[in-house]
Amino acid sequence: MTLAEYVARQQSRIDAALQRWVPAQTALPESIHKAMRYSLFAGGKRIRPILCMAAAEAVSDSALGIESCACTLELIHTYSLIHDDLPALDNDDLRRGVATCHKVFGDAIAILAGDALLTLAFQVLAQMDCPTCRGPADGHARKVALIAELAAAAGTVGGMIGGQVCDLEGEGRFPQAALLEAIHRAKTGALLRASLRMGAIYAGADDEQAGALSCFGEHIGLAFQIVDDVLDVEQSSEALGKTAGKDAQQHKITFPAVYGLERSRQMAEEERQAAHRALLPFHDRAARLRELADFIVQRRA
Amino acid sequence: MTLAEYVARQQSRIDAALQRWVPAQTALPESIHKAMRYSLFAGGKRIRPILCMAAAEAVSDSALGIESCACTLELIHTYSLIHDDLPALDNDDLRRGVATCHKVFGDAIAILAGDALLTLAFQVLAQMDCPTCRGPADGHARKVALIAELAAAAGTVGGMIGGQVCDLEGEGRFPQAALLEAIHRAKTGALLRASLRMGAIYAGADDEQAGALSCFGEHIGLAFQIVDDVLDVEQSSEALGKTAGKDAQQHKITFPAVYGLERSRQMAEEERQAAHRALLPFHDRAARLRELADFIVQRRA
Repeated sequence: MTLAEYVARQQSRIDAALQRWVPAQTALPESIHKAMRYSLFAGGKRIRPILCMAAAEAVSDSALGIESCACTLELIHTYSLIHDDLPALDNDDLRRGVATCHKVFGDAIAILAGDALLTLAFQVLAQMDCPTCRGPADGHARKVALIAELAAAAGTVGGMIGGQVCDLEGEGRFPQAALLEAIHRAKTGALLRASLRMGAIYAGADDEQAGALSCFGEHIGLAFQIVDDVLDVEQSSEALGKTAGKDAQQHKITFPAVYGLERSRQMAEEERQAAHRALLPFHDRAARLRELADFIVQRRA
Repeated sequence: MTLAEYVARQQSRIDAALQRWVPAQTALPESIHKAMRYSLFAGGKRIRPILCMAAAEAVSDSALGIESCACTLELIHTYSLIHDDLPALDNDDLRRGVATCHKVFGDAIAILAGDALLTLAFQVLAQMDCPTCRGPADGHARKVALIAELAAAAGTVGGMIGGQVCDLEGEGRFPQAALLEAIHRAKTGALLRASLRMGAIYAGADDEQAGALSCFGEHIGLAFQIVDDVLDVEQSSEALGKTAGKDAQQHKITFPAVYGLERSRQMAEEERQAAHRALLPFHDRAARLRELADFIVQRRA
């Protein structure tokens, strides 16, 4: 199977899980469920859930049911996009090529839809089946570990919200390398790293495997953000499906602003190589993760 | 111990748990932790955590550590107040007698502080000790049940967010009894009911006990909302610590608007009596819960 075929297959498993877990458009009150589904099914690449599933496959031949666990990463990611796009935050009209949630449903419903996706992520982790667990006690233990992992990665201390706050407050400040890395380790890095770690936890990884996947996640998280910053400079809004050039316009602290485009591209490549090295203990089992790392660094949107 | 002394003691246990679990004001990024603490420690009555702890005490003599579990209800309640008060929603400047979170910290930080409190609630449930559980397996099982309970009560289907959406969309509509009850069962009722049910789960209640506490929670939840609506008509902003008379001003669908003040007061009293009846299986063990039901109905603010 080519990478493109593999990705398409995983995307359809993830979408099926989201379809199962998110209340139907017709469930009352309809407007909130429409808004949640609008943003969830607006063409996201599902990078986080795909990484989660690939991590579990590197650990275990049988990671049955992993798509429910994996889709919670997309619920968190989508909630964060909805809230970040609000007028009070980044004030963005375009996301994944279509109008942002608040442009379609209004600010009130967009705020509540974000809250609802965040809440649903934890509900899914608590309620999902875990068919590969060794009995109910093992299942409960893994669920608690998964919930702790996701909450910490999404939170304020070294997590996604903390990174978002640093980013907001860093706007307009003189670019500083240390601040830049701290922001991105938290803002996008924490959830990408958690994607790998949650796959490891779900599949019952041992400490060495979990450590290696965690290290891979850190490098790939940083690579992802560097590439994102570079694309914001290089690409058109049309290619990105979101407003391009906003970073510079808002005086955001970015990798190209601190290091220049050339050095930023080189740094992304170094992170890609470090990510590959982290996977050495898995030998051939991590072939998909290596391909995904390459894809993340070489993508054009 | 009088009820006032009991409540004060429980409040200080809950506040101590919140102090332990919420990152310090000095933790980076400072602004978000300041905003979270500002709203959490702005004089809330802690009704939900107190009900949770009283439910656990009705079931078991030893509910050691319950305050960590109970304080997650206050984290959820406070997040919902911060988001409800935003200009995009109720646009309220005053809450618990002081300026609302967004008036002090701005809309962006208020949105993120709400998100952070919501996220933290699940992190606490996943990470807390559960010293009265029968071993780690039992502890994990109870935590998973607690997380599922809290997420469902805070969610869109019959939960808090769903109720908030119905309330927003019901504004200005002709008062209708069925819509009114559906809104309030979800908007305030679901979390109050979950307070009792989480106390029951934490303390290892059997099905009969859990059912009785759940029934008590439903009646007390409805009573609470009826009294809230009545006070909004009768009391000054100063006495309430929030803007009074807003319901009528915003054409919200309320119990006094549908039934009139006199019948609303009578309905609250009927719910109080039904709540008492639900506690019959507990005999003397539920004395505090009965007093709390009376307090909720007879309060003046």
